[in-house]
Amino acid sequence: MNANFINPFLSSVSNVLATMAQTESQAGPLSLKKDATACGDVSGIIGMSSPQGKGSFAISFSEGVVLAITQRMLGEEHTEIDSTVTDLVGEVTNMAIGGAKQLLADTGYDFGLASPVVVRGKDHKIDHQSKKATLLIPFTSDVGEFFIEVNFEPS
Amino acid sequence: MNANFINPFLSSVSNVLATMAQTESQAGPLSLKKDATACGDVSGIIGMSSPQGKGSFAISFSEGVVLAITQRMLGEEHTEIDSTVTDLVGEVTNMAIGGAKQLLADTGYDFGLASPVVVRGKDHKIDHQSKKATLLIPFTSDVGEFFIEVNFEPS
Repeated sequence: MNANFINPFLSSVSNVLATMAQTESQAGPLSLKKDATACGDVSGIIGMSSPQGKGSFAISFSEGVVLAITQRMLGEEHTEIDSTVTDLVGEVTNMAIGGAKQLLADTGYDFGLASPVVVRGKDHKIDHQSKKATLLIPFTSDVGEFFIEVNFEPS
Repeated sequence: MNANFINPFLSSVSNVLATMAQTESQAGPLSLKKDATACGDVSGIIGMSSPQGKGSFAISFSEGVVLAITQRMLGEEHTEIDSTVTDLVGEVTNMAIGGAKQLLADTGYDFGLASPVVVRGKDHKIDHQSKKATLLIPFTSDVGEFFIEVNFEPS
């Protein structure tokens, strides 16, 4: 995966959190993850398919971080990852990949998007099942750290 | 969702487990799940996109069931959900949806498939983020029960 492919995800995620949750975030150093994976308490996952290949995108939050983001986005305090919070993670996932899709279209990638799926459960792990490595990118923000994972396998 | 759409998933899942793991399984009564979801210890999830709509498919196993299936598929005993087991769940997910895609093509649905993602973690839950309800279908087998979830949102 080259920078032209990955950068749209990084800027789209930061854009969505800045716009929707007034939260500035910075992407940290990316690493290649071949099997091990980020742990999160809640993750939004979405699949991508195109004539050029297929892949998957995930964004994972700890409980503390997602509850802080929920507070900022909705102005409501939630004390656990309930259905409002999972819906919000689904929305963030949708907006993040929607923004990335638009940016990627400018560089020649055209994706069909699947429906997002949100997984919740303490310290779950995500394994992207493609022959290509998964990129793991940590983000820092004033409410804490979160992660995205991007996997793409050219056809 | 009508029977023409859901039946290919049911028969494909049973076919894959019979062929790959010599395990007969029967689909139980399906139910509509609008928010609550099946719990599993490991789930394979895959997104579908097509001009007709988008959706997601998940298959969830408890640890006991997936370890028994692993034993039958690989002839190896695994005592926990390690990377071999998650890879196997990814393969089963791929084969199940690949079979369903072929059967669906006969009824006029044509899907692009994303890469499968496998999620592991004790008692995680899956929320399909679409405006349409998710169908939850339990399967029984001689190694225990497992679940599939199918969500499809016409465009």
